[in-house]
This record gives sequence, C-alpha cells and structure tokens, in this order.
Amino acid sequence: MSGNREELLNSIKEQGDLVRQLKAAKEPKERIDEEVAKLLALKAKLSGEENASSQKFTLKTPKGTRDYNPQQMALRQGVLDKIVAVFKKHGAESIDTPVFELKEVLTGKYGEDSKLIYDLKDQGGEILSLRYDLTVPLARYLAMSKISSIKRYHIAKVYRRDNPAMTRGRYREFYQCDFDIAGTYDPMLPDAECVKIVVEILEALQVGDFVVKLNHRLLLDGMFEACGVPSDKFRSICSAVDKLDKSPWADVRKEMIEEKGLNDAAADLIGTYVQLSGGTDLVDKLLQDDRLKSVKSAVKGLEEMKLLLQYCKVLGVEKNVLFDLSLARGLDYYTGVIYECVLKSDAPVDSSGEQGTIGSVAGGGRYDNLVGMFDPKKKQVPCVGVSIGVERIFSLLEARQNAQGLKVRTTEIEVYVASAHKGLHEKRLKIISSLWDKGIKAEHSYKTNPKLLAQLQHCEENGIPLAIVLGDSELERGVVKLREVTTRKEDEVKLEDLADEIIRRLRS
Amino acid sequence: MSGNREELLNSIKEQGDLVRQLKAAKEPKERIDEEVAKLLALKAKLSGEENASSQKFTLKTPKGTRDYNPQQMALRQGVLDKIVAVFKKHGAESIDTPVFELKEVLTGKYGEDSKLIYDLKDQGGEILSLRYDLTVPLARYLAMSKISSIKRYHIAKVYRRDNPAMTRGRYREFYQCDFDIAGTYDPMLPDAECVKIVVEILEALQVGDFVVKLNHRLLLDGMFEACGVPSDKFRSICSAVDKLDKSPWADVRKEMIEEKGLNDAAADLIGTYVQLSGGTDLVDKLLQDDRLKSVKSAVKGLEEMKLLLQYCKVLGVEKNVLFDLSLARGLDYYTGVIYECVLKSDAPVDSSGEQGTIGSVAGGGRYDNLVGMFDPKKKQVPCVGVSIGVERIFSLLEARQNAQGLKVRTTEIEVYVASAHKGLHEKRLKIISSLWDKGIKAEHSYKTNPKLLAQLQHCEENGIPLAIVLGDSELERGVVKLREVTTRKEDEVKLEDLADEIIRRLRS
Repeated sequence: MSGNREELLNSIKEQGDLVRQLKAAKEPKERIDEEVAKLLALKAKLSGEENASSQKFTLKTPKGTRDYNPQQMALRQGVLDKIVAVFKKHGAESIDTPVFELKEVLTGKYGEDSKLIYDLKDQGGEILSLRYDLTVPLARYLAMSKISSIKRYHIAKVYRRDNPAMTRGRYREFYQCDFDIAGTYDPMLPDAECVKIVVEILEALQVGDFVVKLNHRLLLDGMFEACGVPSDKFRSICSAVDKLDKSPWADVRKEMIEEKGLNDAAADLIGTYVQLSGGTDLVDKLLQDDRLKSVKSAVKGLEEMKLLLQYCKVLGVEKNVLFDLSLARGLDYYTGVIYECVLKSDAPVDSSGEQGTIGSVAGGGRYDNLVGMFDPKKKQVPCVGVSIGVERIFSLLEARQNAQGLKVRTTEIEVYVASAHKGLHEKRLKIISSLWDKGIKAEHSYKTNPKLLAQLQHCEENGIPLAIVLGDSELERGVVKLREVTTRKEDEVKLEDLADEIIRRLRS
Repeated sequence: MSGNREELLNSIKEQGDLVRQLKAAKEPKERIDEEVAKLLALKAKLSGEENASSQKFTLKTPKGTRDYNPQQMALRQGVLDKIVAVFKKHGAESIDTPVFELKEVLTGKYGEDSKLIYDLKDQGGEILSLRYDLTVPLARYLAMSKISSIKRYHIAKVYRRDNPAMTRGRYREFYQCDFDIAGTYDPMLPDAECVKIVVEILEALQVGDFVVKLNHRLLLDGMFEACGVPSDKFRSICSAVDKLDKSPWADVRKEMIEEKGLNDAAADLIGTYVQLSGGTDLVDKLLQDDRLKSVKSAVKGLEEMKLLLQYCKVLGVEKNVLFDLSLARGLDYYTGVIYECVLKSDAPVDSSGEQGTIGSVAGGGRYDNLVGMFDPKKKQVPCVGVSIGVERIFSLLEARQNAQGLKVRTTEIEVYVASAHKGLHEKRLKIISSLWDKGIKAEHSYKTNPKLLAQLQHCEENGIPLAIVLGDSELERGVVKLREVTTRKEDEVKLEDLADEIIRRLRS
C-alpha cells in the first residue's frame, strides 16, 4: 500500500466518523450534506487511484460472502455431521432442489423481505432468482411431485441481499439446515418432535444453555383481536411484536402507535400480554382470561399450546421450553405453532467479542397453506419444521476454538512415507501405492529427493501418527523403519507385513 | 386436462413430427418454413389457453435443472462418500467458495465458452456471475489467500447455460467433484497421483471398464509447429482436434482446412499423428521422429509423458492408461499433461438406453499459469488436478439400479414403535424418546390411534428391521413385544432392557 493511499484511507475514515457523529447528534441537514459531499470526494479520489494501479480489480469474494478454508471446513463438517445424525435418528430422508427457481415461485412469499431476493440477469429464456430459503422450494417440490407426506432434511446455501454482519455470522450466502414434516397428522405430534430434535441437536453441539421459545400464530391473532386491533393491522402489529427480542417494550409501543396507527389503549393491552411467559400454568390462566376466552382463535391456539407442552413433558424436554407471548417471527406463511431457540446470555461469546449477541440459533413453525399456493387444485399439505442456524453456530464454535488455541486436523492421513536419502522416490511410490490399495490413508513428498528432517517435521506439524522411513540398507534386508511420530520410537518391520502392522497400530 | 387442450397437444406433436421429417429429408426451405409457421401458430394457441387457466405459471424447475428425490439423494450420497474416501486416503483437505464470483474473476478464462456463464442481475452493487467451474475459484482463492501449496478437494454445483441433454446426465446446474494439487514440485509426481486417484475412484464405483487417456499440451503445440501450423492457429486447431472423440478424422480435417484456413499438407500431417496411441514404445518412437525431435516443446512434452508413464507403471495403473495423441481438451488454461477418462463401449448403457454415449467420466490436466493471472505480482502457483464427472456416473448407476429393479432404503430407521390399540400415543412417545436418547434410530406414527396393520405394513415397505408393539396387557407386566419385521417373529422384552436388547440385535 502506497503512503498516499494509506493517508487517503485515513482521511476517509475520519470524515466518515464525523458524518456519523453529526447524524447521531441530529445536526441540521445542510451541515451533514456538506460533510457527506467531502466524504464522497475523498472516496472518488481513492477509486481513481485504484483504477490507475496495475491490478485490474480487487481480489475479493462478493460482498457478504466468504471462502471456507480447510480448518473452517473441518469444523463445519463436524457440526453438519452431528446435525445430520440427529435428523437420521428421526427417520428423515434428504432431497435437493436447484439453487435458483423461476422468479414467480418466490414472488409473494416473503412480504417486505422480497427486496432481498437476488435475481439472475435476463439472458434470454426464463426469469430466475436465487433461492431465499429452503421452505418455499420444498413447498414447490411437494406440489410439483404430488407428494402428500414426507419427513425430509435439506442442507444447502440460500441467498439474501441483506446488510451483512459477518463477525456475527450473518452473510449474504449462508447455509440453512432444515428439517420438516409434511403430511396430515394428529395435532402437535410432529410439532413436538421438532422441539425434541432442536434440543437433541443443541445438546450434541455443546453450545451452552439454551431455551426453545414457543408461541402460536392463532393465539397471537386472537390476542390482537381481543385487544381491539383491526384485523387488517394483524400482520403489521405482529412484525412490531417480533422486534421485542431486540428493542424494549416502550419502543415497540411507540412504533405501534406512531407508525402503525394503533390506539393507545389497544397498545397498552397488548403490552400486558406480550410480557408474559411461562408453562402450562400460564396457558391455564390465559384460558380463563376474560378477553381471550371469548375469541375462538385464541382459545384454539391456547389448547394446542397446552397439548404441545404436555408432549414436550413426555419427550423429556419440558425444562428446555418456554411459552413466550412476545415471540412473533417475521415470515407471513406461519399458521400454527412457532419456535425460536436462543442461547442464554451466559453462553460463550461470539467472534465479535460481544456477549449475548448470538441470539437465535434455530427457528421455525407450522405452515399449513404454503404447498396449496403451488398446487393447481389448491390441495393443501400441512407442514411443520425447524431451521438450524448453522452459520451462527459455526461462528460461535470457531471463536471458542480460536480462544482455546485448538488446532483441528484438516486431513486424516495415517502414515507418511519418507525417504532417508536420495534416489528412493520410485521405491516410495511403490510402497505408498501398496498402502493405498489396502485402504490406508498415506502421503509422501512430491519432491524426488526431500530432506528427511523436512519430512519428519511435516508429520509433527500435521499430527500424522505414523511415518515409514525408507533407506537402502533396510530395503536390502526387506525391512523399513516404522516410526511413531509423537514418541519418535522406531521399529523395523518387514515389507510384507507393513500394511497389516500399520492397521494393527492404528486400531490400538 | 381439458379435451381441447389434449387435442391441441396432439396436433402440436404431429406437426412437430412433420417438420422434423421434412428437415431430415432436406426438403426445400419454403416448404419447411410453411409447416414451421403452422407449428408456431398451434403453440401460440396452447400458450393462450394456458394463460387463461387458473394456474398462474407452470410448476417446474428452471430449464436444465432438476430436483433430487430421496432415492436419488441416497444414490448420490453413496457415490460422493466413495469419492471423498479416496480423496481423503490421499490426504486432501476440503475448501468451499461462494456460488458466485465477481464477474471480472471469470472474464477471459473460458475462451468461446464464456457465453455460457450465468450473470446475476445488476441490483446496485457488484457485478456477479455464477461459477462456471471450481478451478477458476480455486485459483482466485489461492492468489487471494497467498497459499503456495495445498492438496484440496471441492464438491459443489457449477452453472452453464448450455443446451441440456438431461437423459445423458448433462444439466445446466451440475455437481463438480474436483481434486487438485497446487505447489512447486518435481515433474510428474503430483500428475501421476491424479491418475492413480481416478483409477481408484472408478474401481470403487464399479462403473465397468475404463481407460485414462493421456496427452501433453506441449507435445500438441510442438506437433502443430512440426506440421507447419502457424502459432496463432494453435488454439483453434487444438479445439478442432478436441472433436475427434465425436467426429471422424475426415470431418475434423475439413474443419481445419475450410473453417480454420489450414493448408492441406499441414492437415494431412496432423492426421498421421493424431491417429496414434500407445504406451512408452510410442513415446520412444516419437522421440526419434524427424519432425518432432527438432521441436523443443515436442521433445519436452514427450519426455514428461515418458516419466508419467513410468510412474503410472510403479503405481500399478499402467494397464488403465493410454497415451493418445488425439486427446486435446477444450479449455485454454492447460499447460502440461491432460487427462480424460472414458468408459469402454461394453460398459453399462446410460438412461437414454443408448450404448457407449456416456463418454468422459473424468478429466483434467496441469495449469501452471492460472493462479498468476490473479496475483497482483503475477506470482505463479503450479497446479494439476482432475474433475470426476459425477453427474454422468449418477445417471449411469441410476439407470442400472432401475434396470435391476433395486430399491434403495432412503432412511436408516432401525426400530418402529407401534401401538396395538387405541389410547397409547403418550406411552409410545415416552418409549421412543428413551430410544432416541440412547442413539437408536426410531420412528412412530404421527396419528394418535393408528391401525396396527398400517403400522406393520409401513415397516415392511420401508425395510425397517425391528418393530416394538405396545399393548396394555404387556405394559401392565412391564414388557413390550419386539418383532423382527422380515420373519415376523416376536419376543417379549422387559422395558428396562429394551434399548440394550435392540442394540444387541442390530449388532448381530
């Protein structure tokens, strides 16, 4: 970086800080505009400098995306393996769908968030968009394949043109890891199994204490009705409630009244409900509540919640769940129970170093009307499912690993085939080839005459347990040295017994 | 489907057949155009009818893409597991990169095929394209992360706006499965290991007899020079040679002369070389060839080929390789050895029912200059790698499975928890929960009172080995029935011994 460029970057940073301060202090618009213009001029200068330099473009991944290096991949694979093991324990099959869909498939499914959908360029042909989640493609798949029941998991990347917050595990390209049960079944049996699965997964991943918050869309709607919210405001008031995990009630109340046009009395009534959380006792109390008990959907929501809590008790996850009336969830398509699993604040810090900011690590709910939106005859397939927030879990485990200074092995090599002196590369090839043919994980140097010390160092740095050292004097006698890398203990082993001896040592 | 629509579809089919017949018979253009116009009119009528119908759009995946159902996923996972096992045996790490790259990263890497790249719509921000392969993203990753050596595999989807031939396993979205060795090493040691890996994978997948064809870009260029091809025509003549796997020499010769402007003598000379294939003997013969031995790059290519064949012999894969001068490969970025693995014609037929059309199932080569194109200081990282054509392998194995009428299990459920009569659903939940907690793969009905016969049929249809049958009379005595599904043999097992007994039976 040239000194000039560095100076320019510094000026841009300082000017940016100034603009932010002025905005925070709500200074007059003219004053802010003046400083913004200076900032833009500085940025234009920088971009001019960069175009003039020899490199044609910045070497980077697209905004909000990242590469995974081998350490990250090893961690990621370990996490996904544990999750898939739980899905399979519950009998899930897996499916896959294309990364893009006809744009029309996604239209009208995500409410306000539709603006975050990535579109493909019209290059002649169909109009396509990258998938935004795995739920809408599942619904399209079920309708298209005329499947009326399935228990499936799907682990794949989804795309959102959101403001990335990468240190907190929020990306524009990220993995979703979904489990859903589709089919017409008796109330709350599939719904309760989803809770059990979330609990099993988070316990397997050892991410610390967590709680699965539960609520019900029918209860929310019934509560809004009971509080005097007009029915055309249900969804917008619901999305205000959804902000309670980040904002205090006073702010949410203000939004309801000032932005959404709700009257004070209705807002205050909602306030008395959304601050409640508990278990079966709370459900029973609300079933006696004068306002709620006269609203049909509220009663139905409460009865289903009671049954869900009862099943959670039988499944041994009562201690992990909390009925919480402030849980709303943004997506339009939920029709029944909704879930959100959050880590408790004493859980490990995330990679930004802040505590308690990881938030939600799983979420989901019941959506009984989505498949019907795709079926030509509007045939419904009721569905319920959960999505595991694997990116946040990766971030968290990665930060923990870094903090503990742990180094994960990124290969599974069992034996390194080394040569003690020059001229042995074909003998190395012959021996390593026989090990590969016996299924032993082995590597050697791609140099014809590597130094012995360098070869042994490679073994120690990479945690390879065994090394074979070839030398002419041993080969003449039909033996090689077999070395335990950590202890540096060496034994002579006959060539014909080599593979068996290695397998024996790896087993013990 | 309305009768009218069905009639219309029939007319379109008949008219289409007529047009194809006329074209095949090379009828006059006017006659063909007349019938094509009729066909288009019919199609327009159909599309008008469809717009008028209730469904807003066709329920489909984008052109050239498909969903994978659970059977296909099970097959795919089995194939990928075998491939990854071989990669890991050779010490490969894994990496992942975003599905899209800055468009500039892909520009100028694929020659004529650049027109097949999918671009994202400019929604304000960076200009992005979907990846076309995994090689260019690897090179970008190595340059960006300043990595000078790695042995990595990468299994991910890539995107090409090609004409799909889906029955032959050719899609617009498809998996690539790449293994590459990057680093400055001694000649042909990594190159030979790539051949060994291809052989190990194809043997593990049992796809039938195959041959790994080998050639060298330096030899091809040297041969063109020796035959009198002007150097600015090397790449275009090379891509003509690349067609020899599909077209006879006479057609390729014609293309060279009429389209690429080569003189007859040069073309005929090339003809004498590209029809040669063999082993070390052929290399030795060509090293004595008067024309070739005076061209430096030809000699270097031949000497490297000789070394590669020698290493292949030591690695025990001599019988699987063939030095073939007609092998060219389209991509511009190869600089050394090139590979292509083809199934022999007596290999199993593909799903289109045609024999010998599967063609290439693996390919690759050495590309020493690609990473340098991304490095600001043009620092080179030599690379060599192979890509396994997994889509073709999936197609082939799927067709074989269908032909044999095999049904693959798509879940791993070990025990089904059934109830013999009404009112047992909470007892079922309690027992299945205790099995899950012991790591046993179990499922049950999501109906509160399912019929016993339906539950047992589910077990038989899905290949579940064991079933537990709950009944009040047994539960009162603290036992349940444990049933072997295939033999229908039942034993009573004490509830407290249930999990251990199931684990014991699954092991034996």
